[in-house]
Amino acid sequence: TFTRGIHTVTLIPGDGIGPEISDAVMEIFAAAKAPIQWEERNVTAIQGPGGKWMIPPDAKESMDRNKIGLKGPLKTPIAAGHPSMNLLLRKTFDLYANVRPCVSIEGYKTPYSDVNLVTIRENTEGEYSGIEHVIVDGVVQSIKLITEQASQRIAEYAFEYARNNQRASVTAVHKANIMRMSDGLFLRKCREAAEKHKDVKFAEMYLDTVCLNMVQDPTQFDVLVMPNLYGDILSDLCAGLIGGLGVTPSGNIGANGVAIFESVHGTAPDIAGKDMANPTALLLSAVMMLRHMGLHGHAKKIETACYDTIRDKKVLTKDLGGNSKCSEFTEAICQRVRDMN
Amino acid sequence: TFTRGIHTVTLIPGDGIGPEISDAVMEIFAAAKAPIQWEERNVTAIQGPGGKWMIPPDAKESMDRNKIGLKGPLKTPIAAGHPSMNLLLRKTFDLYANVRPCVSIEGYKTPYSDVNLVTIRENTEGEYSGIEHVIVDGVVQSIKLITEQASQRIAEYAFEYARNNQRASVTAVHKANIMRMSDGLFLRKCREAAEKHKDVKFAEMYLDTVCLNMVQDPTQFDVLVMPNLYGDILSDLCAGLIGGLGVTPSGNIGANGVAIFESVHGTAPDIAGKDMANPTALLLSAVMMLRHMGLHGHAKKIETACYDTIRDKKVLTKDLGGNSKCSEFTEAICQRVRDMN
Ligand SMILES: CC(C)[C@H](C(=O)O)[C@@H](O)C(=O)O
Ligand SMILES: CC(C)[C@H](C(=O)O)[C@@H](O)C(=O)O
Repeated sequence: TFTRGIHTVTLIPGDGIGPEISDAVMEIFAAAKAPIQWEERNVTAIQGPGGKWMIPPDAKESMDRNKIGLKGPLKTPIAAGHPSMNLLLRKTFDLYANVRPCVSIEGYKTPYSDVNLVTIRENTEGEYSGIEHVIVDGVVQSIKLITEQASQRIAEYAFEYARNNQRASVTAVHKANIMRMSDGLFLRKCREAAEKHKDVKFAEMYLDTVCLNMVQDPTQFDVLVMPNLYGDILSDLCAGLIGGLGVTPSGNIGANGVAIFESVHGTAPDIAGKDMANPTALLLSAVMMLRHMGLHGHAKKIETACYDTIRDKKVLTKDLGGNSKCSEFTEAICQRVRDMN
Repeated sequence: TFTRGIHTVTLIPGDGIGPEISDAVMEIFAAAKAPIQWEERNVTAIQGPGGKWMIPPDAKESMDRNKIGLKGPLKTPIAAGHPSMNLLLRKTFDLYANVRPCVSIEGYKTPYSDVNLVTIRENTEGEYSGIEHVIVDGVVQSIKLITEQASQRIAEYAFEYARNNQRASVTAVHKANIMRMSDGLFLRKCREAAEKHKDVKFAEMYLDTVCLNMVQDPTQFDVLVMPNLYGDILSDLCAGLIGGLGVTPSGNIGANGVAIFESVHGTAPDIAGKDMANPTALLLSAVMMLRHMGLHGHAKKIETACYDTIRDKKVLTKDLGGNSKCSEFTEAICQRVRDMN
């Protein structure tokens, strides 16, 4: 459905280095002749009637129309009661799956090589329910909410993702030995989805065991699916294995093709506006977006140009170990893209 | 109070390889002339009046009298409703602090070197409260319980541990951006303890950020303190950094000197009784025990002998990369200990 004609995507450049790295992505997409037209929107939260925080109507309308968004980093609001923008966006568009492919980048040295896995995080409930109580003075409860519906949806998504992306196995990550009912329900839904997708291997593993095995040998993992908080933790851990948030793409997926792809690093205010930022995470997120839209040829071209530029080591931003400016790194990728056109 | 005379310690050899590695520890302690007398007890859970699972009265009585225990691995019971023995022991003796020093072992290669940190885990509440409900069909809640009292106790413990063990800093690990009330309370108690212990540096960090930074550079961390589940995860992650549960010691600390030290690896039934097990984790746990008892000289001697034997690489068990039997590895350590006497 997405494969013909020009597609409009809502672009949320974000704060700090957001605009620079968004420009970089737009340049590279133009060089690659990707059939994408950008519609820029600002999503700084506003307060609606009754003081409820919401994203601005024109941003919401743009996303509702285009279904697909690309988003740079947003600064964390400090006003009391102000929600995290990331959480507000996930909620507003019911983006129930957070997907983070972690793939070792040749030429960017970390203690690990050949990492090639995907974390799939349930994005709407669990420990992020926001329900908390003071029972008596000094005694607090936070509620982890697990539903059959959300568990089934994310389990199904994980197996479908595995199939569509030629992945061999899905591992459900849980602590059902401790949270027997909640993680137990989550796990049951994963087992049921596994029954329906016999072409994909299924395994289940305790979260602590996954963490231990992950740092000993991450190459043993493929697709991992898990409740919200575990995904928060494990996706960052895995990003660390391949070099950090500056090189890790992310996608938040909802129903009916709705999705927002984003870099999950910070706004880096210290280097903002200085042409020093590394656009890799946003660029690789945009590549995920192209794949999501079925534009595999353009995705491959841009991804290859990005990886080749890093492997080549001649033109790299500072955080990647080089001395080049963001614009120089971007131009190096554009050049490779043009050579492939 | 523990430094003079002979001390009796409750020894729980455990299942599988438990008895062999317990024998190894006893031999090494004898060679080092450590002033410890062992009182062996079995803690296989029994059902008391009303079907309640409990540890056998003679084991309880022994621990109540001796205050200090050393424990090998216990097999996970499969009977429905049977509690985890680890959890039952922590509960029975109110062992509120789980302490795991993770120190790189020279000669045992992992992707990291110079790791030298300690995870301190709240052991009694949090996500391990065991309170869960079905709200309506397909909707489940698990309750994370955080109390002022338990948070204060563990925060105090962390700072005292840091001071007593010449550690420079304590980092509180939390997700108070999401669980504002529960993790917020935990964090507040850590801040208060920090105010009282100005000689120890204090930092706070999100759990996801800790995981990311940990795999990128674990040497930046010192003492880490956190709620129950986060500690479960992070202690295993850190064990992975230094070579796994086979070389990682652990202590569960209660009030008034009560403590159980344990290896946290499994019972390894496949190699049980074959003289192939690696006693390192139990031995280093026993070394922690000696330090807890103020027997620093004996602790140092045994620890040095163990590390020297591993660094030397001549006599190692299979999992450590060698070809030697458990008894040979044990004898090599004993020999070094005797040379130091
Ligand atoms: C910013 C924060 C609320 C968020 C989370 O905890 O989910 C972040 O860590 C993430 O992983 O997207
Ligand atoms: C055995 C299990 C109940 C336990 C836990 O989850 O705490 C274990 O993982 C641990 O870390 O001691």
